[in-house]
Amino acid sequence: MKQIEGGVTAAKGFQAAGAEAAVKYQNRKDMALIYSEAPCRVAGTFTSNLVKAAPVQWDKQLVEQAPFVQAVVANSGIANACTGGQGMECCRAEAEYAGKLLGIPARAVLVASTGVIGMQLPMDRITAGLEKLAAAKSGTLQAGHDAARAIMTTDTVPKEIAVQVELGGRTVTLGGMCKGSGMIHPNMCTMLAFLTTDAKISKEMLQKALSADVVDSFNMISVDGDTSTNDTLLILANGLAGNEEITAEGPDYDAFCQALHFVTTFLARKMAGDGEGATALFECRVVGAASKQDARILAKSVICSSLSKAAIFGHDANFGRFLCALGYSGAVFDPENVDLYFESEAGSLHIYSAGCALDYSEEEATKILSAPEVTVLADMHMGEAEAIAWGCDLSYDYVRINADYRS
Amino acid sequence: MKQIEGGVTAAKGFQAAGAEAAVKYQNRKDMALIYSEAPCRVAGTFTSNLVKAAPVQWDKQLVEQAPFVQAVVANSGIANACTGGQGMECCRAEAEYAGKLLGIPARAVLVASTGVIGMQLPMDRITAGLEKLAAAKSGTLQAGHDAARAIMTTDTVPKEIAVQVELGGRTVTLGGMCKGSGMIHPNMCTMLAFLTTDAKISKEMLQKALSADVVDSFNMISVDGDTSTNDTLLILANGLAGNEEITAEGPDYDAFCQALHFVTTFLARKMAGDGEGATALFECRVVGAASKQDARILAKSVICSSLSKAAIFGHDANFGRFLCALGYSGAVFDPENVDLYFESEAGSLHIYSAGCALDYSEEEATKILSAPEVTVLADMHMGEAEAIAWGCDLSYDYVRINADYRS
Repeated sequence: MKQIEGGVTAAKGFQAAGAEAAVKYQNRKDMALIYSEAPCRVAGTFTSNLVKAAPVQWDKQLVEQAPFVQAVVANSGIANACTGGQGMECCRAEAEYAGKLLGIPARAVLVASTGVIGMQLPMDRITAGLEKLAAAKSGTLQAGHDAARAIMTTDTVPKEIAVQVELGGRTVTLGGMCKGSGMIHPNMCTMLAFLTTDAKISKEMLQKALSADVVDSFNMISVDGDTSTNDTLLILANGLAGNEEITAEGPDYDAFCQALHFVTTFLARKMAGDGEGATALFECRVVGAASKQDARILAKSVICSSLSKAAIFGHDANFGRFLCALGYSGAVFDPENVDLYFESEAGSLHIYSAGCALDYSEEEATKILSAPEVTVLADMHMGEAEAIAWGCDLSYDYVRINADYRS
Repeated sequence: MKQIEGGVTAAKGFQAAGAEAAVKYQNRKDMALIYSEAPCRVAGTFTSNLVKAAPVQWDKQLVEQAPFVQAVVANSGIANACTGGQGMECCRAEAEYAGKLLGIPARAVLVASTGVIGMQLPMDRITAGLEKLAAAKSGTLQAGHDAARAIMTTDTVPKEIAVQVELGGRTVTLGGMCKGSGMIHPNMCTMLAFLTTDAKISKEMLQKALSADVVDSFNMISVDGDTSTNDTLLILANGLAGNEEITAEGPDYDAFCQALHFVTTFLARKMAGDGEGATALFECRVVGAASKQDARILAKSVICSSLSKAAIFGHDANFGRFLCALGYSGAVFDPENVDLYFESEAGSLHIYSAGCALDYSEEEATKILSAPEVTVLADMHMGEAEAIAWGCDLSYDYVRINADYRS
């Protein structure tokens, strides 16, 4: 497997576009299109929030029932959540018009929205935006970049990746893009992430690979503990790589899953590190846990703790907060038998062992915690299981961004 | 029942003191004593965090096994958590020395600590502080105030209350004090809260009343979602009111529970409203829930949501965030059939109904959300159950306070 340049247009037969539609933001791209020249298998995972945005409901139905899909249209600025019957009607109208412009059925068009909850979409601007997207769509790297930029809300950087892997002598490409930033605490998957691949794979195996993957990728990140109404992860596979179709587990499936995990983990880490107001990526690695599930629960509890996040922002070696978060996670362990370490590009430090703080250098700890990517490593000494979770620090800017997000 | 002046010294036979011991803070009272002239029944609830501070372990044992207790000594500044065997030894030594000074057994002395995790207590200062406390103890209102001030950490105001209730023709007094501020997300009870009463009540009924009460008082508040290592709620009953002993359910027990709930709810609200960096008390009242448990889960999910808290700080009527938090709470309801209202001393406003935002005035909403106590009322239309949860807004100061708490 190797990483290559690009994102959603890297795989064969995929085109994309970004356009200025002024849905809510002015003077920036705020609508995105992903289009495949050939019909695609699709798999998806969606928010577990009971309050599901209209596009989530639309996409869920398509992923479950549509024989194939061929396009995704997305907008930023307005989430089309808590919008009742009118919101669902907007999705239908958007998919229908996009389908008409692209020459494909409405039921082959997935729809996604992100932004403020509770506002209705301005359909005149959406339809004008769709016309721009249809006219601009192309298979270039730049078109992929444009789409990745268009789905950003409070994100500070676009998030894209592409990899290639050999499956039965054929080169298969897998690319993706996502946006995150706030209301990020995925529970099934994450905010908006779109993956494209030219792999030939059955719908069943595609969904299986995706569902298995999110547990250790997008479901292991959190920015603020708020599980969004709009979380959507979609993967479109158009089969143009010409590999023998993956219809069961085996070496090809494993290689595909490995590439998928590389892509999803890359995007998930990017999303965590670019959380609203974040100054650092805050990683917690748990080793020696009694079970995989325990390891996940422990790691996620630490990166979700407001006090731990504030300590990372302050570069403060307040290790008691990390222990506290392990302690209330719900996983069972012996607090007297935990080892804690701080790690970053600036070094590694053993902080806590056998129930007590070690005689570490505060200066050294501060140096390590001042790096742009910081890891808290906890060895539970209970078993062999490991997990990694990704979050970010809690800064003044998180408060600033969210105290008046709508204006 | 009537509210009276005072706190832990209001009930007959209770004395208190506060003293400067320089445990960690300088030039302020940081050690507190509560002492009863007569032996007391005791009940307590403690943190559910697996990482329990040494004093929590000490007190749990006493509450379960000691026939009576007669004093509580507490310090702020250092939590004596994650301190291993040495930390337990400090508790034992502190209780022993206090007992010697007060002429009671070490096993009649409860111990509590709050502050930084991971540091050992300076026992020379603790013992000097105990001597000051024993010399200063008195039954005055001022002595109660001194004790309430001494347990504060990042709290901005002391928190005290006292009430009187008639039980079988006798006047029974119940008083209390607490401290909260950060790492507040009680799960069994709260940070440090001490209640004193001269009621005569069996140990069994005292624990029953306390355990039943916390579910709807201290367990319904949250400042930052972090369940502390030190949460301790204790009630001492010395029986000096001379009422007929409460040994079973009945009118006297009910009257006692009512007084208890008034006191605990008052203190819990105070603790939430004085959360670290808080500019407002943020209350969520859920009505029409399918069950009491659902009502609790829903109300608490809203006041715990970082995005909802940031919206309250910004006086921003971003109702989608409250709906979102209801949606991921885990309780089942129909999002299309929820009514949301904002309420405060500045007015009341119906915001959301039948799946859509109502045509409300943003100006009016901002006015309501700018009050010092703000309520989000959610009617779930699923049944008859109700619950209230209390939190606070998320401000720049929460980040400031916690980015470098230890220095």
